[in-house]
Amino acid sequence: MTLVRTVLKLGGSVITHKDQPETVDERSLGRACEAIAAFLSNERTTDDEGGKRVGEEDKRDGEERERPEIILVHGGGSFGHHHAATHGISSTDGSGDAPALVSIHRAMGELNDFVLDALHDRDIDALPVRPLSVAHRDESGLQFYSGSVEAMLEEGFVPTTHGDVVVDSGMGGTILSGDDIVVSLARSLDADRVGLCSTVPGVLDDDGEVISQIESFDEVATAVGESHTTDVTGGMAHKVQQLLALDATASIFSVDALETFLEDGAAGTVVRGKQSQ
Amino acid sequence: MTLVRTVLKLGGSVITHKDQPETVDERSLGRACEAIAAFLSNERTTDDEGGKRVGEEDKRDGEERERPEIILVHGGGSFGHHHAATHGISSTDGSGDAPALVSIHRAMGELNDFVLDALHDRDIDALPVRPLSVAHRDESGLQFYSGSVEAMLEEGFVPTTHGDVVVDSGMGGTILSGDDIVVSLARSLDADRVGLCSTVPGVLDDDGEVISQIESFDEVATAVGESHTTDVTGGMAHKVQQLLALDATASIFSVDALETFLEDGAAGTVVRGKQSQ
Repeated sequence: MTLVRTVLKLGGSVITHKDQPETVDERSLGRACEAIAAFLSNERTTDDEGGKRVGEEDKRDGEERERPEIILVHGGGSFGHHHAATHGISSTDGSGDAPALVSIHRAMGELNDFVLDALHDRDIDALPVRPLSVAHRDESGLQFYSGSVEAMLEEGFVPTTHGDVVVDSGMGGTILSGDDIVVSLARSLDADRVGLCSTVPGVLDDDGEVISQIESFDEVATAVGESHTTDVTGGMAHKVQQLLALDATASIFSVDALETFLEDGAAGTVVRGKQSQ
Repeated sequence: MTLVRTVLKLGGSVITHKDQPETVDERSLGRACEAIAAFLSNERTTDDEGGKRVGEEDKRDGEERERPEIILVHGGGSFGHHHAATHGISSTDGSGDAPALVSIHRAMGELNDFVLDALHDRDIDALPVRPLSVAHRDESGLQFYSGSVEAMLEEGFVPTTHGDVVVDSGMGGTILSGDDIVVSLARSLDADRVGLCSTVPGVLDDDGEVISQIESFDEVATAVGESHTTDVTGGMAHKVQQLLALDATASIFSVDALETFLEDGAAGTVVRGKQSQ
């Protein structure tokens, strides 16, 4: 049995209407959940039991089959950003005001509940993982404890986490983006595949065409440079740089390509940093 | 500056009406929060700044003052138990049904929100810590990651956690009691004081009188024995045995004695296991 471990981020723009405060894009969220459910049930029915849980016997029979594991991360979209802006809290501007931090955390929890419900409706055994409880930043950077996520995966659950506020040494609490979680978990969980699913089909070149593969930042510096870096969570340049540093193959794609990504392990723009060296 | 670290559990019977489904006992919860607020503000105003945050300068001036840190743990009372019973989930009977586990987790989250609001109303900078995100059980027992709790304490927050469901190796998810969290955190955070605040004034002897001090289980075996062990979360005998194994001095007391416990570090029945040896 080969374990194939995927960290998949559903961008805030995929699952919410970004221009309407605290509004879930149910159609788009539902579509993404359908794709995940189809992927998990397709591959999981290859075990003898016909069920989604793989029993001890299956593990022992030595056949080369794939068991897919998915860790979901979602952005905040129109949920987190509003509260964060109201209280002037960002990834670099902290606050020691617990009620303010909790208001952001609760908004993200509401969105997480919508996502969990949508997954449960499709028989996906998703469980929440709340970054404020499990992560913090200190001098060494982000500390995201992955022990409970590992335990969930081992029991056949789909851990579902999200951008959040976290305690930040010397600053109270600050915003932790979904992208930063993806990078941290891809490393600590030794993921095989990373997918960033948003509303753009990939990293675009100067002519607006999707770049199919990126192996070094220099190749795309002019295309993804300064213009995007003003984005609150770092923009495309930061994203590409983070993904290039991973062992896993990473893809940047739109929700239209989610099925392709899940089946093939690659879609949109494929970022291969370490693998190409 | 001497750090005095207290793990305080507010029993489910203190903060909810146990006989009414999902009903907070606002009077009793409020009273407990007032006592905590008074304790934190009293001791904290001893620093030069007059504020509740202790700055770097205060840490450096070498004066012998106490800085109190509190970690709060609350039980489920009428919130968690109902959902757990419906789905047949206990500390020993697990389930792989994610929606069932999430229904218990959400009920506990609602109660946690009430507790956080009551603390915030008294200017206590409380932040939630959700066990499902941060803890699991495996062959070695409970694994409760305390890194984010430490980070919260360092930033002057009051981590507020609760009985919950957690992933349990080979069983899906099971119930984790507030008492088990108290014991785990008292150890990993090297707490000075542990308090279990419930509706009973302490451990009672055969005549119904509060036993003032317990140094070994033999002393109280007849009084706390079999009769209580049928309780869903282990009963008094289990509680006393766990507390005897701690380095910290532990007290078992009712909400009437909460002020006394916070000021003196002891109230009701004081359990000194390792210290008495």
